[in-house]
Amino acid sequence: MIKLGIIGGTGYTGVELLRLLTQHPEANVQVITSRTEAGKPVSELFPNLRGHLDLKFVEPTPDAYRDCDLVFFATPNTTAMSQAEALLAAGIRVIDLAADFRIKDVAVWEQWYGATHACPALLEDAVYGLPELNREAIRNARLVANPGCYPTSVILALLPLLKNDMIEPGSIIADCKSGTSGAGRKASVGTAFCEVTESVKAYGVDGHRHLPEIREILRGVDAAADLVFTPHLMPMIRGIHATVYADSRGPAERVQSVFEEFYRDEPFVDVMPAGSHPETRSVRGANLCRLAVHFLEAADKYVVLSVEDNLVKGAAGQAIQNMNLMFGLDETAGLQPPGMMP
Amino acid sequence: MIKLGIIGGTGYTGVELLRLLTQHPEANVQVITSRTEAGKPVSELFPNLRGHLDLKFVEPTPDAYRDCDLVFFATPNTTAMSQAEALLAAGIRVIDLAADFRIKDVAVWEQWYGATHACPALLEDAVYGLPELNREAIRNARLVANPGCYPTSVILALLPLLKNDMIEPGSIIADCKSGTSGAGRKASVGTAFCEVTESVKAYGVDGHRHLPEIREILRGVDAAADLVFTPHLMPMIRGIHATVYADSRGPAERVQSVFEEFYRDEPFVDVMPAGSHPETRSVRGANLCRLAVHFLEAADKYVVLSVEDNLVKGAAGQAIQNMNLMFGLDETAGLQPPGMMP
Amino acid sequence: MIKLGIIGGTGYTGVELLRLLTQHPEANVQVITSRTEAGKPVSELFPNLRGHLDLKFVEPTPDAYRDCDLVFFATPNTTAMSQAEALLAAGIRVIDLAADFRIKDVAVWEQWYGATHACPALLEDAVYGLPELNREAIRNARLVANPGCYPTSVILALLPLLKNDMIEPGSIIADCKSGTSGAGRKASVGTAFCEVTESVKAYGVDGHRHLPEIREILRGVDAAADLVFTPHLMPMIRGIHATVYADSRGPAERVQSVFEEFYRDEPFVDVMPAGSHPETRSVRGANLCRLAVHFLEAADKYVVLSVEDNLVKGAAGQAIQNMNLMFGLDETAGLQPPGMMP
Amino acid sequence: MIKLGIIGGTGYTGVELLRLLTQHPEANVQVITSRTEAGKPVSELFPNLRGHLDLKFVEPTPDAYRDCDLVFFATPNTTAMSQAEALLAAGIRVIDLAADFRIKDVAVWEQWYGATHACPALLEDAVYGLPELNREAIRNARLVANPGCYPTSVILALLPLLKNDMIEPGSIIADCKSGTSGAGRKASVGTAFCEVTESVKAYGVDGHRHLPEIREILRGVDAAADLVFTPHLMPMIRGIHATVYADSRGPAERVQSVFEEFYRDEPFVDVMPAGSHPETRSVRGANLCRLAVHFLEAADKYVVLSVEDNLVKGAAGQAIQNMNLMFGLDETAGLQPPGMMP
Repeated sequence: MIKLGIIGGTGYTGVELLRLLTQHPEANVQVITSRTEAGKPVSELFPNLRGHLDLKFVEPTPDAYRDCDLVFFATPNTTAMSQAEALLAAGIRVIDLAADFRIKDVAVWEQWYGATHACPALLEDAVYGLPELNREAIRNARLVANPGCYPTSVILALLPLLKNDMIEPGSIIADCKSGTSGAGRKASVGTAFCEVTESVKAYGVDGHRHLPEIREILRGVDAAADLVFTPHLMPMIRGIHATVYADSRGPAERVQSVFEEFYRDEPFVDVMPAGSHPETRSVRGANLCRLAVHFLEAADKYVVLSVEDNLVKGAAGQAIQNMNLMFGLDETAGLQPPGMMP
Repeated sequence: MIKLGIIGGTGYTGVELLRLLTQHPEANVQVITSRTEAGKPVSELFPNLRGHLDLKFVEPTPDAYRDCDLVFFATPNTTAMSQAEALLAAGIRVIDLAADFRIKDVAVWEQWYGATHACPALLEDAVYGLPELNREAIRNARLVANPGCYPTSVILALLPLLKNDMIEPGSIIADCKSGTSGAGRKASVGTAFCEVTESVKAYGVDGHRHLPEIREILRGVDAAADLVFTPHLMPMIRGIHATVYADSRGPAERVQSVFEEFYRDEPFVDVMPAGSHPETRSVRGANLCRLAVHFLEAADKYVVLSVEDNLVKGAAGQAIQNMNLMFGLDETAGLQPPGMMP
Repeated sequence: MIKLGIIGGTGYTGVELLRLLTQHPEANVQVITSRTEAGKPVSELFPNLRGHLDLKFVEPTPDAYRDCDLVFFATPNTTAMSQAEALLAAGIRVIDLAADFRIKDVAVWEQWYGATHACPALLEDAVYGLPELNREAIRNARLVANPGCYPTSVILALLPLLKNDMIEPGSIIADCKSGTSGAGRKASVGTAFCEVTESVKAYGVDGHRHLPEIREILRGVDAAADLVFTPHLMPMIRGIHATVYADSRGPAERVQSVFEEFYRDEPFVDVMPAGSHPETRSVRGANLCRLAVHFLEAADKYVVLSVEDNLVKGAAGQAIQNMNLMFGLDETAGLQPPGMMP
Repeated sequence: MIKLGIIGGTGYTGVELLRLLTQHPEANVQVITSRTEAGKPVSELFPNLRGHLDLKFVEPTPDAYRDCDLVFFATPNTTAMSQAEALLAAGIRVIDLAADFRIKDVAVWEQWYGATHACPALLEDAVYGLPELNREAIRNARLVANPGCYPTSVILALLPLLKNDMIEPGSIIADCKSGTSGAGRKASVGTAFCEVTESVKAYGVDGHRHLPEIREILRGVDAAADLVFTPHLMPMIRGIHATVYADSRGPAERVQSVFEEFYRDEPFVDVMPAGSHPETRSVRGANLCRLAVHFLEAADKYVVLSVEDNLVKGAAGQAIQNMNLMFGLDETAGLQPPGMMP
């Protein structure tokens, strides 16, 4: 049994980790910390877990995690970077679900996150935890940077095209729609029910932190890659729908089979039949990115539709997938259940 | 043109007052105050008002309202009671949309609101602003206590039965369902989109502040009246659905015509045909309480279904209706538009 | 491995059975029939099942089920009663998720369902599949009538009170709120998104088919039991919230411990701490009924709050729980995952 | 008083026309026809109109409209084209809210709508009813083709850029998100609450009927214009959010003032301050298109955000705006109320 710690598990990523891990056959949450909720039973904050988890939040003291094999950071950005080093030194592996280790270029990270990076030396070690791109490196990683929700959906949509040299790498537009859980569990007017429901809006059109993350990863595949990225807030809890446009380069007839072959052995990427339009609800609660690729002949462009549950394949589920790889378990352990529909 | 002031108009009651008043032919908002938003254009906070209202929030200084004929308090509870006296002394009439003047019994008020009442002497003057009950008194009032949203829907459901002695007055159960805007515009986890949508819950089962308000008003009609009141939070913005149960007393055949006659001349109460089930959406945005009365013969009980928009007939619309009465205007001025459906 | 058939699995109960059964360790869906969808892969209709279920809908011919140990009817009312006899004669056990075998009194059934019952002789054999009431009988049943969604939530709220003689049995009012999935998967204006969302309404106030079902079961516990039952449609997919009122009889101090003791060993009923208000979302996707009991001293009434997922504990999950009992499996097999929140 | 007829007013466009027209000072609905609902009071189908409209649906006989000055077709596509000629011959003006007269190129229309056009001779007379483009022609029109909801939002986003030669005309991508009311009021599984809520999907990626409409209008401004158009279905009733991308041509510094000047005198287009992100809810119920333009320097692209209420500026409101122009009324008559928020 792998012994797990969760730091800062009072948000939506935290409760989703816990929900999934209660069903994991070979991992067990030993400790979960929260400064604000220390002493409170986890199931009091998250009543869906009543009867499933007999843990209380504890103070995040240095030795709270000493018996853990792995610690998940489900904290706000800039927390993990100040604590990861000590954990790693103690032989505890780390998966950060926030953004501290996602971008290798420290200057870029510091510009977008408005902070000085606390442990730039660790960045080289950190593995970007997208198994479809970095599976072997993840198996051996001590420190995994779990990808952002938007980046997961956009990068998976583009990998087959970029790796097969089928698009103009600088022509990408990713128009993305996200459920509100992506904004986290917090008290704010902007995420209040009456402000969000029955409305749609774009945000961060002039720059969103997931843009440099996507760009860096894509440039690792094709140095000329660049994109416009526009996030939108949707009146729903879970789900990301990325609509990704790119100019075609070369013949497009084979695109459907290129996608199918590229993801043939991937347990958590599903390429739909030609002509499909995936719905975000079809992956609700499931660790899955579902793709459909369209070629628009008149415009000579590809449109890739990519859906995921931002809390699962876009966060907690992918973190568990990474954990499975790091510990040599079946990659799908604890992640098999289908989405919930309706 | 009646000159109006609004104190504390940064909440949902405030923006709804403004929305309705932009269309009022004989009243004009001159000043709107807010400590937190002073200096900001109102239409920046509420973009639906862009092009409709050229006002900025100003500091709530004592003489901000000196040119006003009437001031609306769209503030939290306990604000109006400390400022009303000075305004009235200056000859400015007052409508409080909060609860400071709704309950005549000071001890009851202080128990439920957990505060010492700042001006108990004014309570006798204050008129409970339910036109269907107190129309003549409202016409002459200097100070109107605008009813709570739940009380409006429950009291209007019961008046025909109580006044005609058709129910056991102590047998009332009001099971009420409210949209989330009733909780106000604020930063709180409990009203966040992801916490409210796709869920229903009861709250305040052991006691809610609208219970003593309803009880006092009903007892003004029948001293033996008493009720159980259970509010529920609904995953929708606007609307209250009160389902009101009471034991029948005497013959029930005439109940439909009793309701129709009772509300025949009321512009803002609509009695539906026998057997109907009103939908909250049918009054969305409209100053209307829509009722349907059912008699369950086997159980010898009445079930009255009562719907309203909590922000309109349950708050801002009713306040304007009261203003119209206080100033001798057509009672329906500014309040004629039908509900928005779908 | 238990071999299962599903008749008419194109509705929400059908897809939920399939979702849950893909994770069941000892049961396997062999055949699923549908007249309208015969030939189509199940995962084309329900894309959440892509990769989880490699079955096509087939025509409902008499011998389609011949290898099955058990058949679920996920059909409209009046279908099961004309086919159950033949299946039972062939040694196949049956769970009907519709209403054909829920009411023992044929005259009552025929009055409420507007049809002649096709096999009244089977009614005596049929066991009402509420494990908390009939566990032993279910173990030995050949034919189980799976309870209605509303009845499950209401009956579980009342059993501890009725069995302990703590309420006036004729004083019950069940004010129930249901998500829209309870209306089934069908083309109708009344269940269209734009008609349902952002609105609440009561329906069937003068009589709903679940009323005689609840009444008959309660009278099996206390012959004097009777109730008023008012269903309401909520703008959400899943979830029932029953608010159940009853007049107290005798001392009420012990009610919390009465509930806790009554359900101590029940795997799928959760009694919350005194003073709680359960949310329907806390059981979303889970086979669980969560209860909170309140005593209102002034009114001398109990208010029991009861929540469930109408598609799980109110339908498919409870059917699997019954299957587990009928085949001597662990009662919780396939039903352990917690609810999904948010 | 202008006398109006509405043909086929049982859909969402119909009820929205009625809602708005009850408040119009100089127009009056005399007759409303429906084959399926003939004989039924309009307010029975649309209870928001109870007390506001005392009309019954009547059979659509040839002389039902003989006293009308103007007839609105709120019918499915292909209805208006077979009846408009007779009405025009009788001196009755016509506004078609469907698509029969929106595209001048008959071959294109017939290809996309899969029908033979019944009166191609009328196409030349028909004026595309976008006042911001064709105001003078509309004033003199006998037959107005009311624009589609998507086209209105996309074209208004592009006019200032195209007319000022600021974009590469062939580089346009319009990624559009629409509320479900755009799909009409009908019984279909695809628009059921449980299928639509809590999900997002694209549709018609390979071709949607609004594409040739937008293209033809844009080419009237710049013959080289072309676009990719991707509609998405949103879990909300009302609102369209168009996110429009185009490659910049020439200097971009002035783009904010270009937009502000272009729409300075337009009563129903609102250009927000630089850097804004409009929300669809800010125009709910209002006849308004709200725009924000962003220039992305790194990508050398414009992103225009355009929101409207698809039932108002995208349908019924714009039709009334056109009617006002055709009859020499104040263009804003009946269309002044602000949006409803929250």
